[in-house]
Amino acid sequence: MSRILDEINFPSDMKSLSNEELLKLCTEIREQMIIRLSNTGGHVGSNLGVIEATVALHYVFNSPIDKIVFDVSHQSYTHKLLTGRKEAYMNPEKYSSVSGFTNPLESEHDIFSIGHTSTSISLACGLAKARDLKEEKNNIIAVVGDGALSGGEALEGLNNASVLQSNIIIIINDNDMSIAENHGGLYQNLKALRESNGQSNCNLFKALGFDYYLVRDGNNLEDLIETFKKVKDIDHPVIVHMCTVKGKGYLLAEQNKEKWHFQGAFNLGTGNSLQVVNETEETYENLTRDYLTQRMKEDKNVIAITAGTPKVLGFDEKTRQEFKEQFVDVGIAEEHAVAFASGIAKNGGKPVFGVSSSFIQRTYDQLSQDLALNNSPAVILVFFNGITSESQTHLGVFDIPLISNIPNIVYLAPTCKEEYISMLDWSLNQTNHPVVIRVPGIIAETRNSKILNDYDKLNKYEVVEKGNKVAILGLGKFFKLGTKVKDLLKEKANIKATLINPRYITGIDNEVLEKLKEDHELVITLEDGVIDGGFGEKIARFYSNSNIKVLNFGAKKEFVNNVKLEELYEKYHLREDMIVSDILGIL
Amino acid sequence: MSRILDEINFPSDMKSLSNEELLKLCTEIREQMIIRLSNTGGHVGSNLGVIEATVALHYVFNSPIDKIVFDVSHQSYTHKLLTGRKEAYMNPEKYSSVSGFTNPLESEHDIFSIGHTSTSISLACGLAKARDLKEEKNNIIAVVGDGALSGGEALEGLNNASVLQSNIIIIINDNDMSIAENHGGLYQNLKALRESNGQSNCNLFKALGFDYYLVRDGNNLEDLIETFKKVKDIDHPVIVHMCTVKGKGYLLAEQNKEKWHFQGAFNLGTGNSLQVVNETEETYENLTRDYLTQRMKEDKNVIAITAGTPKVLGFDEKTRQEFKEQFVDVGIAEEHAVAFASGIAKNGGKPVFGVSSSFIQRTYDQLSQDLALNNSPAVILVFFNGITSESQTHLGVFDIPLISNIPNIVYLAPTCKEEYISMLDWSLNQTNHPVVIRVPGIIAETRNSKILNDYDKLNKYEVVEKGNKVAILGLGKFFKLGTKVKDLLKEKANIKATLINPRYITGIDNEVLEKLKEDHELVITLEDGVIDGGFGEKIARFYSNSNIKVLNFGAKKEFVNNVKLEELYEKYHLREDMIVSDILGIL
Repeated sequence: MSRILDEINFPSDMKSLSNEELLKLCTEIREQMIIRLSNTGGHVGSNLGVIEATVALHYVFNSPIDKIVFDVSHQSYTHKLLTGRKEAYMNPEKYSSVSGFTNPLESEHDIFSIGHTSTSISLACGLAKARDLKEEKNNIIAVVGDGALSGGEALEGLNNASVLQSNIIIIINDNDMSIAENHGGLYQNLKALRESNGQSNCNLFKALGFDYYLVRDGNNLEDLIETFKKVKDIDHPVIVHMCTVKGKGYLLAEQNKEKWHFQGAFNLGTGNSLQVVNETEETYENLTRDYLTQRMKEDKNVIAITAGTPKVLGFDEKTRQEFKEQFVDVGIAEEHAVAFASGIAKNGGKPVFGVSSSFIQRTYDQLSQDLALNNSPAVILVFFNGITSESQTHLGVFDIPLISNIPNIVYLAPTCKEEYISMLDWSLNQTNHPVVIRVPGIIAETRNSKILNDYDKLNKYEVVEKGNKVAILGLGKFFKLGTKVKDLLKEKANIKATLINPRYITGIDNEVLEKLKEDHELVITLEDGVIDGGFGEKIARFYSNSNIKVLNFGAKKEFVNNVKLEELYEKYHLREDMIVSDILGIL
Repeated sequence: MSRILDEINFPSDMKSLSNEELLKLCTEIREQMIIRLSNTGGHVGSNLGVIEATVALHYVFNSPIDKIVFDVSHQSYTHKLLTGRKEAYMNPEKYSSVSGFTNPLESEHDIFSIGHTSTSISLACGLAKARDLKEEKNNIIAVVGDGALSGGEALEGLNNASVLQSNIIIIINDNDMSIAENHGGLYQNLKALRESNGQSNCNLFKALGFDYYLVRDGNNLEDLIETFKKVKDIDHPVIVHMCTVKGKGYLLAEQNKEKWHFQGAFNLGTGNSLQVVNETEETYENLTRDYLTQRMKEDKNVIAITAGTPKVLGFDEKTRQEFKEQFVDVGIAEEHAVAFASGIAKNGGKPVFGVSSSFIQRTYDQLSQDLALNNSPAVILVFFNGITSESQTHLGVFDIPLISNIPNIVYLAPTCKEEYISMLDWSLNQTNHPVVIRVPGIIAETRNSKILNDYDKLNKYEVVEKGNKVAILGLGKFFKLGTKVKDLLKEKANIKATLINPRYITGIDNEVLEKLKEDHELVITLEDGVIDGGFGEKIARFYSNSNIKVLNFGAKKEFVNNVKLEELYEKYHLREDMIVSDILGIL
């Protein structure tokens, strides 16, 4: 029996389908999507949940003339499949031909590169305003998940979208979940709206001035089409609140929504992960959880905070339940999280906010004004930092320039798990500084070395091995690379280099650096982040009026998209052989 | 007749006053405040509006055990007067003994140093959470103006405050104004609530889960006291929506709220400013307005954007009315403004967002993800940047490290008005890059020099004078300082230095810098911003493996509070005589 999917390549191919055929198309897409996801992994839950909605969108609207902006865009797989990229979901050889997020380089149906939450409404407002200036007449549609609504940018966007006085259609995909469960008042309102069939007196969206439509069953294709037809070409801002089931059609994903938010390749039948996990390897996640839960038991003022990603701190559902009062998930609201932590610290609590490097980008002003200016002794742990093969929207290389150039903050770079715990310990026990710790990787490794626990006197570097001629400053995770460079230098050129663990990203150890001038010619810096505005440049500045030469190693200032780690290391000369060769080229 | 005010030094002195005496106290404070404001200037409108509310707060609550967090804290004058700092408002010799914002160094009644909007709710949430962990029982109160509510952090805070399950009192001071008029859906809701006496079916705060009280006349002391008594010691989150009159009691300020938001010293009788304004001096504000309005007339796709500070772009009420469709005030919502601009640019519009250096700090992630990653050719103008004697919350020295380390953005530093217009012109005409321009000061000065209009080839520095031995890179506004250094070097040491206008903050001119190696020993960089993570360090890095020495001049990474400009220049060695002496010390 021939499949409808086989005849569909672009939205224009769907326009003449009957409702029955459209339904069949959804079934075929879902089947295909489950197969694809089981092979490649991906955002399982959200993509299975919006198949009907995406089919309905492309059936009713006229992309790319009508412009659809997907928030986060992790749920855009069906959109991609229906807009010229079918092979990427049907042909195993082409699986890697598309990325997991919208990207204008892939298709004119993708308006923006998006990967952070809460941006679609504001971006769509801009598209709509430009359309109005041009006196054009297309539809501008933002598709935003309920989880993303709590982010400040989305809320600013809602406040402004509602007064646009022309066409903008905001589709709230309400599956009652962020990555984990939702938190905050607006979710209680979504619930009240769901349960009252949209009739609740309290309606956040109407209060903000929006016209409001509810699609109670957002996996019902006919209801979706009917509503989308009603709002198409509307002349004012409208919210379509559609309730979908995260993981729809794959029972395991429906049953455990948090686990199936994002999943690696899995066995289609059992749902078991196909990834080989080394259970014996200790992760920084779990190390952090174990440390924090121990501290929480001892001291009820210790409190862990997450902004919608509890697993970053290792807090699974069980742990969250156990430490109910001492664990707060503020939802996707990083700005609030930083200010909240500052307030807690100011009132005698001991807050620890765990966040990934890419998402702390949302909090520069809160780090500066709410935290640093007030010298609140809160602790922030930055996970998933450094050079990775991640999407261009989730790079972890910018946190050093972002954080380290703010006054008052002490930004620490531990080199191993023992030093990490030692620094965490100190930061929770002191009350003089806001402290940020750059978590050195995923797998918790040991350096098998005594840790100096003397953090009170700031900016004292650890001279691990004293040599001469060349000094290597290996920051954080790259201390290990520094050790390799030192060994290779000895081997290749019989140079006994000095090896230093700087420990502090935010300060210069004048004494140690001055002393190096006595018997060194070259200082190299290794940092797992962008060089521009980072740690190494400060060392270059320190020596800039001396005879010491400096070489900074790190990432280039650029957005790289899913590039292999080895390729990036090679490009940035971050291999010990390349570094040694650069060194020898200077000496 | 003796004044009640004479007997009041701390909130405890007010507790036994009768209602009549409290009313009299308000009158005395208002009288005193108008005198003080006419002498020193300050935030006239908001402070006159909240006298009754502040008296009622300190009468009902028990500060500092009960903790009051003032949003922006520009409206805290009466609070300061009632908490041990009366002399600063009554004794001309002590006028300068307090700052215009809350500051814990001044008093235990000031919980935080605050100067940016929209932070109080999240900070108060933190105080409340820490209180609950400690099992204490005080009141936590945030006082936030309606204008500040539209900021993302405030909205994130509201969403989280409403589910706190314990005491938190959020007082919305609704005077129907930001600095200029309010914009956005939530203001329509505040209006509906005011007009329905709080009975409107649409209630944003109830929709978010708050208990809700309205004080229809927020300048009525008895009503305020009655309501505050009702919510005192409440066991759940509550909103007190109080409607006050901005400028209350000083007729001129009531009549022209925007003008009297902030006012320098003025004649008490006529309201005329006492500041000597040189009307013939051209400002960058007006230059920008004149340029933009001209462009707008020629091209309806040009659109100016502000986030609640239209005067930054020179857009007074008249201009705003004239260019209604091509001027958008998104309210205090900088994140939205950047994403909105990106969306407009993506759809063919030509957006120009004007913002002060201190407030662009709120948009790092939007600059990176919404703008730069998408290479949207929007234009952002950064005003009020550089070293100033401003409050520690409004410093303009951090924008270079913030913006210039983001990929894809072209950050330009014009040196004079002709170059500014030339760069603005180019940035609006091109469609390849997001462009940010650092406006070089307040008064538009000329360099009397031909401007190179060749911006398409990025990162080409302008060699203004070719010399040898010493090269001076004078960035933006500090090009002028560079010229002085050059002249003094010639005079003092007969060194004919090379003088360079780098123009691009975000790039290195390899060719020019390489060539300097031929006949120069020292390169100095001058930038009107913090050195850490800034422009000069990149030059230091460039030369770090050569024999060229580099000296970076700029601001130290620190929060400085209302320090005189000359003092800061001296501290940072930013005087030509000090720079020349530093140079000669190296050569």
